Amino acid sequence: MITSSFHPPRRTLMGPGPTDVNPRVLEAMSRPTIGHLDPEFVGMMEEVKALLQYAFQTRNELTLPVSAPGSAGMETCVVNLLEPGDKAIVCRNGVFGGRMKENVERAGCEAIIVDDPWGKSVDPNKLEDALKANPDAKLIGFVHAETSTGALSDAKTLVKLAHDYDCLAIVDAVTSLGGVPLKVDEWEIDAVYSGSQKCLSCVPGLSPVSLNERAQGVIRSRSTTVQSWFMDLNLVMGYWGSGAKRTYHHTAPVNTLYALHEALVVIKEEGIENAWARHAHHHRALRAGIEAMGLQFVCEEHERLPQLNAVTIPAGVEDAEVRTRLLHEFNLEIGAGLGDLAGKAWRIGLMGYGASETNVLHCLGALDAVLGGMGADIEVGQAVAAARAIYGD
Amino acid sequence: MITSSFHPPRRTLMGPGPTDVNPRVLEAMSRPTIGHLDPEFVGMMEEVKALLQYAFQTRNELTLPVSAPGSAGMETCVVNLLEPGDKAIVCRNGVFGGRMKENVERAGCEAIIVDDPWGKSVDPNKLEDALKANPDAKLIGFVHAETSTGALSDAKTLVKLAHDYDCLAIVDAVTSLGGVPLKVDEWEIDAVYSGSQKCLSCVPGLSPVSLNERAQGVIRSRSTTVQSWFMDLNLVMGYWGSGAKRTYHHTAPVNTLYALHEALVVIKEEGIENAWARHAHHHRALRAGIEAMGLQFVCEEHERLPQLNAVTIPAGVEDAEVRTRLLHEFNLEIGAGLGDLAGKAWRIGLMGYGASETNVLHCLGALDAVLGGMGADIEVGQAVAAARAIYGD
Repeated sequence: MITSSFHPPRRTLMGPGPTDVNPRVLEAMSRPTIGHLDPEFVGMMEEVKALLQYAFQTRNELTLPVSAPGSAGMETCVVNLLEPGDKAIVCRNGVFGGRMKENVERAGCEAIIVDDPWGKSVDPNKLEDALKANPDAKLIGFVHAETSTGALSDAKTLVKLAHDYDCLAIVDAVTSLGGVPLKVDEWEIDAVYSGSQKCLSCVPGLSPVSLNERAQGVIRSRSTTVQSWFMDLNLVMGYWGSGAKRTYHHTAPVNTLYALHEALVVIKEEGIENAWARHAHHHRALRAGIEAMGLQFVCEEHERLPQLNAVTIPAGVEDAEVRTRLLHEFNLEIGAGLGDLAGKAWRIGLMGYGASETNVLHCLGALDAVLGGMGADIEVGQAVAAARAIYGD
Repeated sequence: MITSSFHPPRRTLMGPGPTDVNPRVLEAMSRPTIGHLDPEFVGMMEEVKALLQYAFQTRNELTLPVSAPGSAGMETCVVNLLEPGDKAIVCRNGVFGGRMKENVERAGCEAIIVDDPWGKSVDPNKLEDALKANPDAKLIGFVHAETSTGALSDAKTLVKLAHDYDCLAIVDAVTSLGGVPLKVDEWEIDAVYSGSQKCLSCVPGLSPVSLNERAQGVIRSRSTTVQSWFMDLNLVMGYWGSGAKRTYHHTAPVNTLYALHEALVVIKEEGIENAWARHAHHHRALRAGIEAMGLQFVCEEHERLPQLNAVTIPAGVEDAEVRTRLLHEFNLEIGAGLGDLAGKAWRIGLMGYGASETNVLHCLGALDAVLGGMGADIEVGQAVAAARAIYGD
């Protein structure tokens, strides 16, 4: 029987998330727990809302962290905005579009799928065709930053299309928030959800969401009850809403919210535009190293996320062996391929606190050593120097 | 705009939860985040499962923490075991029975309600009448330890009744786990859920659940898909299940699981029977003090939870003023009444790490000072001495 504490190894997290967590965030999380209805805690909740509004670039009043991981944020948006029998158009260019389809169907609705190849952005023309063909669709959903492939889609254009055809737009921003420009108000996004453990560099477990007035109106005018009690935003708003009187709904994850507060303060200090630029900068250095090795990216440059780099596994190299050696010899975690890309690509995350020169150089050095040592068909010994040249070292 | 860290005040948490968290748990939670598929993390998950089996006194393989608060654990049990059109009998003697009814109805099912007065245990005779009258019921649900009233129900008897009438039994053990005897296997409970922030003295945010073979069989033989993607145990089991291959479902709340692991190690070190006895012991001391003041408990002694003490607010005393003064002058949080007991009772928690002589004496001293200072009709200056007598000080 187990009677000893768990002490995790020290890792460098460069997978698809969780990412390296800022030590400030870990320290904040370990502060003493207080009550979830304590006036001091309620004051902190108000700050979390304001800081999330900043990160999302929105004034939406309904901006709060769902007390569960990002997939619960997705489900929250879907089950609140749809009622049984509704029709939704879901763009699918990776795992998470497929997950949104699942959620739509489990809400008793019809999902019209717009498929694009894995590794490509969502094609606005295909979406427009689907909107024309389905004038009764209530909403569209798509993934801004596909964590499974590293593809970035043009959220502004896709949302505008949805509105042109009188649909709401749900945007999955799990991997985009904090890593690339995301302008909820300017782009008129109706509902957006994210995760705490990606470019916010917080611990996993929370899903920030934001819904505009139009989306709130749809929720208020539902004719059926939301199928999930836990995710019913009418109830969640009673706890997170402004005003003197808060209604108890569930017990908030107090310490994880301390962590999110600190992670958001860190972003506020840096400035969200500077965070976006930092991700792009370190991506350029990583790219220089990857290309110097002769490796290929799954996504073309203009469709590629700086913070999630899917790299094709070179011929003759055994996926799991490389990742295992990186983990055991370098304490470095990179991500395996998911779905269609399983065994075919690695996913290298440069997210939040982990989007740093230290991490880029560590990753390139480790990959170079492991692949070179296995006799893979790469240019050995070039990667780190190529990245350092970008940094001007 | 907010750009400073949040530093919580130091509180003594003696409400209905969260309760005082063991500093060991806070420290464990702040250890560096590792990946949710890291072999070291997977090993820790196996330990969490084994430790939860110990706490629940079960060998159920399907024993794991749902990655969300206790109300999500309730919903997980309900939506996995029921299919639309099913009938369930829900015993309601407080807020949380009412919540279970809500969940049953949102799952597209009929809820037959067995009502008992707030502050009383669930009456087995009434349940048996409902079972006789509803031979088509699929399951019953009840709250073992009603957090809203402090009433303890006889889980063993209620579960046996359910089985006599060929029903499954779902047991809400949010406040009971770790505080009073709960023997999942011996009592043949089919499905049970709890919360991390009560007698486990962990931070809020996780909901341990355990389902036996019979319940798992019901889930496996469903003819409809579980309405919630996030809570679908078929999918959750793919990640938490034994065996070499784990299927990614959602990103586990890594650091909160470190915290739960440590909290469970603490309980294993103490011994679960010793933890039960400790709660009873400190309840006796608190009771002596409360009674010495001349205050009354909502529940009769034989129906009363040691860890959640609902105390009737004396005549002429303003509820909120007392709680505010306790918070501001003594940094002490006690709970307000909920639902039918709002404004009529306080809820004093003695849970987990907070079930201690220090907390009992602090609470009695503070109540005595505040109530006495307001001229309430109590015996002033007796409470602390009465408790100390129990402790043999």
